[in-house]
Amino acid sequence: MSNNLRINAERMRAAFDELAQVGSTAGGGVNRPAFSEAHLAARDWFRRLIEKAGLEFRSDGAGNHSALLPCGPVSAPTLLLGSHLDSVADGGRFDGALGVMAALEVLRTVKEAGLRLPFNLEAIDCTDEEGTLVGLLGSAALAGELEPEHLQSPRGGRRALVEGMHRAGLSEAGMLTAARPSGSLAGYLELHIEQGVRLERAGLDIGIVSAIVGISSYRLTFLGRADHAGTATMDDRLDASLGASAFTLAAREIVQGDFPDCVVNVGRMEFAPGAFNIVPARVELSLEFRAPDEGQFARLDSALIERAGGEAGRFGLELRTEFLGRHSPTPMSAAAQDAFSGACADLGLSHAPLVSGAGHDGQSLARICPVGMIFVPSADGASHSPREFTRWEDCVNGAEVLLQASLRFAERVVR
Amino acid sequence: MSNNLRINAERMRAAFDELAQVGSTAGGGVNRPAFSEAHLAARDWFRRLIEKAGLEFRSDGAGNHSALLPCGPVSAPTLLLGSHLDSVADGGRFDGALGVMAALEVLRTVKEAGLRLPFNLEAIDCTDEEGTLVGLLGSAALAGELEPEHLQSPRGGRRALVEGMHRAGLSEAGMLTAARPSGSLAGYLELHIEQGVRLERAGLDIGIVSAIVGISSYRLTFLGRADHAGTATMDDRLDASLGASAFTLAAREIVQGDFPDCVVNVGRMEFAPGAFNIVPARVELSLEFRAPDEGQFARLDSALIERAGGEAGRFGLELRTEFLGRHSPTPMSAAAQDAFSGACADLGLSHAPLVSGAGHDGQSLARICPVGMIFVPSADGASHSPREFTRWEDCVNGAEVLLQASLRFAERVVR
Repeated sequence: MSNNLRINAERMRAAFDELAQVGSTAGGGVNRPAFSEAHLAARDWFRRLIEKAGLEFRSDGAGNHSALLPCGPVSAPTLLLGSHLDSVADGGRFDGALGVMAALEVLRTVKEAGLRLPFNLEAIDCTDEEGTLVGLLGSAALAGELEPEHLQSPRGGRRALVEGMHRAGLSEAGMLTAARPSGSLAGYLELHIEQGVRLERAGLDIGIVSAIVGISSYRLTFLGRADHAGTATMDDRLDASLGASAFTLAAREIVQGDFPDCVVNVGRMEFAPGAFNIVPARVELSLEFRAPDEGQFARLDSALIERAGGEAGRFGLELRTEFLGRHSPTPMSAAAQDAFSGACADLGLSHAPLVSGAGHDGQSLARICPVGMIFVPSADGASHSPREFTRWEDCVNGAEVLLQASLRFAERVVR
Repeated sequence: MSNNLRINAERMRAAFDELAQVGSTAGGGVNRPAFSEAHLAARDWFRRLIEKAGLEFRSDGAGNHSALLPCGPVSAPTLLLGSHLDSVADGGRFDGALGVMAALEVLRTVKEAGLRLPFNLEAIDCTDEEGTLVGLLGSAALAGELEPEHLQSPRGGRRALVEGMHRAGLSEAGMLTAARPSGSLAGYLELHIEQGVRLERAGLDIGIVSAIVGISSYRLTFLGRADHAGTATMDDRLDASLGASAFTLAAREIVQGDFPDCVVNVGRMEFAPGAFNIVPARVELSLEFRAPDEGQFARLDSALIERAGGEAGRFGLELRTEFLGRHSPTPMSAAAQDAFSGACADLGLSHAPLVSGAGHDGQSLARICPVGMIFVPSADGASHSPREFTRWEDCVNGAEVLLQASLRFAERVVR
């Protein structure tokens, strides 16, 4: 089906460059946290572009913004393409934005060619993928997975969420109305930058995601005793910093030694009372780890939490373990992976399967439809940074694969 | 000279208990940070008590409050006794307060007995000993050591200092006028709680301070690189938390292994960017260490800073070393120590020499006069906490030794 069809790379570039100006930062990146003024400006800009392109605009109670192309039968399901326009604070121009611009370009190309497909097409910008507020908020709402309690103590704080929803003209009740009816989505395909160095190091054009890692996070609190740092002898102290420090080193050793496909991060420690002259009574440690499958995920969890207890005990400390949440490892649809590899072969692009170490909206959407995802190379692996860069030629490759895979996906999934 | 003279323990107790009500906290401690409303209320109370006792009240440009007893020749020097009425935030009732109340009681006892001494007596409450604002502020001013730059970026922040001085009716210029004329002080003697467990464990009544430790502080910054905590491989990371953690453990080992008379504390780490899903690019670490003499002080400094560099290098990090300040180790006057041990012998109290692991106003005053200090036992060593406690009988012992040592000091120092 239409394998000679190609996107309009110049048109996509113009749109991509215009978008990069919205919320642009001095360092060449963008600062568009979910529901910030810059993010809402990007969404307004996207809406105008959709309308200019002669596509239908749609938004829902979770703030997701879409372009619709009714290229299939009226009652046919929809193949969803897309990504997100929000960024982390002081992020890069490519993360999310490339996927939305490529999705829109696929719709414009199919519209221009006047193709009829067995499904309708939708290019979506999902709300708060990055987790400034809740994380994967828009896609969780689409998948019917959003619960009122997720909005009660979101990771970005309740106040930021309430203020953001107010700026965006959204309501809590409305958030819960965005679930798509069962069977309404034929699938979800996303193009994203790799945010790592594997494609660049291997000299590959395209990474076909085989699974999105599971992510788990804990707050670990090592509890000792505040003492005068001059008068308490070293032997008498119950110094919370020692447990936290020993665990931080041990966590890395555990992963490097026994879990080569996993990663772990201690992203923050918070000391209390936190003075030069007081022995730390309490250290709160932010722990996150990721694994590509449920087996490793569970074993790593046990190994880390057990070790935290061991290091606490070694220094006479108590450990308080607070589980903050998890996303299960999510295998990608085999049909989507086949469509992507077929498309790469047709286009003469080198490719390999990759596990995604980052979380993506596909994790939510995999609950309600087949999901597939491709990566294009990130220069130096830079991500969540103004240094983020992908060669334009790689961006175009990704969009072409997204187009061809959509057409192939039509043949395979929808009968 | 008057070795049968005894203080009025009931009168001292009444004063001590009344003082403990000013800024009292639910946990049985006091909250009187320097120049807080509660601290100023305690000073007002002290002034009224001085006047009620028929003593002369004096205050200076640094806010130091004193009771004067002209028991010597008009042009004779002054023997200064005292401590401080400010507390750390949520501190205890004994730290500082006991020393001021005992000093006042010594003056009242000498006045009541109508004794003539070769010097005049002064009981002082020194400003901001605890360092809520600057640290040893009042005594540094007395010693002529206070420089305008100490007031520009004080450890408690410039704004807190300016607001506090305003509340206390003091000015920056006035602070610099409090230096005592050369030769005007015959000495400075202080009674304080130990804030440690050595006296209690050894079953001793009195600790005679042989030296106040030197204290040095640094801000060490371990610099790595922020990376996506899902997509950057473990081997590729430059994780600032690893250097900071390894150094924290190493610092303790260095002191326990090679510097048994010293202590070290990592009181705080500050992570940046500080997110669950970002590899820490920067960890700022608050380092403080103490040593009883210049030799150990210098060797420990080298060992710690060298090791910090080594641990940074081991994890591919850069180290930024910011020296924040030091107080040299301060030996106590031999004459004062003799006066204290003679007084203990007369009173039948067990005693031993001790190094003070905490900083005290005597560090400043040792620059201008002979300084001596005694400790009484702290139950459980609790300090800077509402749990702080010293048996009343030990408090009385301390005050009796202070009185007798003052009389002995007269014989030895002033001719």
